[in-house]
Amino acid sequence: MERYDIAVIGTGPAGISAAITAKVRNKNILLLGRAPYSPKIQMAHMIDNYPGLPHLSGEELGRALTEHMEQMEIAVTLDTVRAVYAMGKYFAIQAANAEYEAESVIIATGVAPSHTIKGEEEFLGRGVSYCATCDAALYRGKTVAVVSYTPKEEAEAAFLAEMSEKVLYFQLYEGMAKLPDNVEVIREKPQKVEGGLKAERLITKEHTYTVDGIFFLRESVPAAQLVPGLQMEGNHIAINRKCESNLQGCFACGDITGTPYQYIKAAGEGNIAALSAVSFLDKKQINEKRQEENDDRKQLKIAEISSTTT
Amino acid sequence: MERYDIAVIGTGPAGISAAITAKVRNKNILLLGRAPYSPKIQMAHMIDNYPGLPHLSGEELGRALTEHMEQMEIAVTLDTVRAVYAMGKYFAIQAANAEYEAESVIIATGVAPSHTIKGEEEFLGRGVSYCATCDAALYRGKTVAVVSYTPKEEAEAAFLAEMSEKVLYFQLYEGMAKLPDNVEVIREKPQKVEGGLKAERLITKEHTYTVDGIFFLRESVPAAQLVPGLQMEGNHIAINRKCESNLQGCFACGDITGTPYQYIKAAGEGNIAALSAVSFLDKKQINEKRQEENDDRKQLKIAEISSTTT
Repeated sequence: MERYDIAVIGTGPAGISAAITAKVRNKNILLLGRAPYSPKIQMAHMIDNYPGLPHLSGEELGRALTEHMEQMEIAVTLDTVRAVYAMGKYFAIQAANAEYEAESVIIATGVAPSHTIKGEEEFLGRGVSYCATCDAALYRGKTVAVVSYTPKEEAEAAFLAEMSEKVLYFQLYEGMAKLPDNVEVIREKPQKVEGGLKAERLITKEHTYTVDGIFFLRESVPAAQLVPGLQMEGNHIAINRKCESNLQGCFACGDITGTPYQYIKAAGEGNIAALSAVSFLDKKQINEKRQEENDDRKQLKIAEISSTTT
Repeated sequence: MERYDIAVIGTGPAGISAAITAKVRNKNILLLGRAPYSPKIQMAHMIDNYPGLPHLSGEELGRALTEHMEQMEIAVTLDTVRAVYAMGKYFAIQAANAEYEAESVIIATGVAPSHTIKGEEEFLGRGVSYCATCDAALYRGKTVAVVSYTPKEEAEAAFLAEMSEKVLYFQLYEGMAKLPDNVEVIREKPQKVEGGLKAERLITKEHTYTVDGIFFLRESVPAAQLVPGLQMEGNHIAINRKCESNLQGCFACGDITGTPYQYIKAAGEGNIAALSAVSFLDKKQINEKRQEENDDRKQLKIAEISSTTT
């Protein structure tokens, strides 16, 4: 698998700025998100304080950022990230369409309205999952609940239905879902996850459902759940002024790092995060070289010893 | 004297960004520096990572920022700040041409090549000064040295010559200085300040000069000396992620807060500093109102007591 230098997650001003600076610094980048840019940019009515681009609409800022990316040949990889795992020497990124690997990661996902339900975080990794691709195999021949917020997730539910005995599909959007026969569509709002050592029950206002596993499939995963082990401050990723998180090689920028929620603040932090990632990669390379040299020296010593003993 | 809500010192991308956001937030601002923008911007050859303005020269970025300021009717007050004093309830700003007052201050002066000489910082406030306007009166009838880096400072030396007996003018630039008769021009490079309780001697490679006071007049004053009491980290102002310094109501942004020295990072921090200043002003106003109400209540109580006792 190709291993990128820097994976940037999110295509708001923070993610785009990080990608631009990383590209200027000649890094092999993966920019994951929605193209050409995050819908939040377009939502802005009028932006007056992005210095150098006075009085422009969100759409105009979006266009300016897109043109900048095009000029620098930066492409957006359309995918929804479900989980990022710090593997020690690299990061494994599990997304809806594929898996990716990167030496370092920049989280620029913005702040999602946090609407986890009771017990969801508590049982995460113990019966609660955000990633069908990752965890479907655990539920072969079992009963799973899928809590789905958009029609996009029907494909994932169908995939789960291939593996598991039965899927209870909690549909939280309008319209008719297209799903296999062993999927039961339930139009009730889950309120709580209960269980013992692991999640056992999903509870709605109307009923209690006994299940082996529960998948919450949302457009975006809350940052704390996105990257296990990531230190948070409330809803925000805790970072220092270098945009470093508590996980080595994992950086964050933009709204996800805290207020003010401002385009130019996000763009500024994207730049800092990218340069911190570049400096992290440089140090890593030096250390790995040193390690290799040490290994070579050890090999040499062993060779010397064995040559004197034989 | 008019008291501004926010004084922004510096007209680089950080200062301009701070001024723009403060103006958007309807504050009465004073932007001090060089017009239309700091010379450092113009020095940039090509900027590729200011998101939304791809591949532009420093001059082009400068023009974009100027146009933005013009659209928002932000004017630059041309003046060189010599010292900023935290007066408790406000800040007093002493500059070459005038004095100013502001409720809060944003330092965006950039990083000046630091070329203080030996003993200069040690004797600051004890015979060493950066501000002729402020301290000339202390040297009535005495001998002072003026260390001058640009012809601009000749006016200050002339003013000092009015007050003091003699001025030794250490001219560190080319050309003929126009100065009063009691000013002796010396073309030697000062290397060291010496003294006991206060500065007594200025030493060059060639000679030792006995003086009562020494004025260092530079284009820009190092930040630590600019604002007495300001906490530094090396050459940079120590700030937190809200751009707050250790002095309440004093904020900093841009290169002066540390690396990376990048236009977009500076612009992002300008935005944060401005919003932190706005929030500081809001809290201050609430506190002052509360204080007034308390005072009113006390007055009322006193009135009640005196009405019952009379």
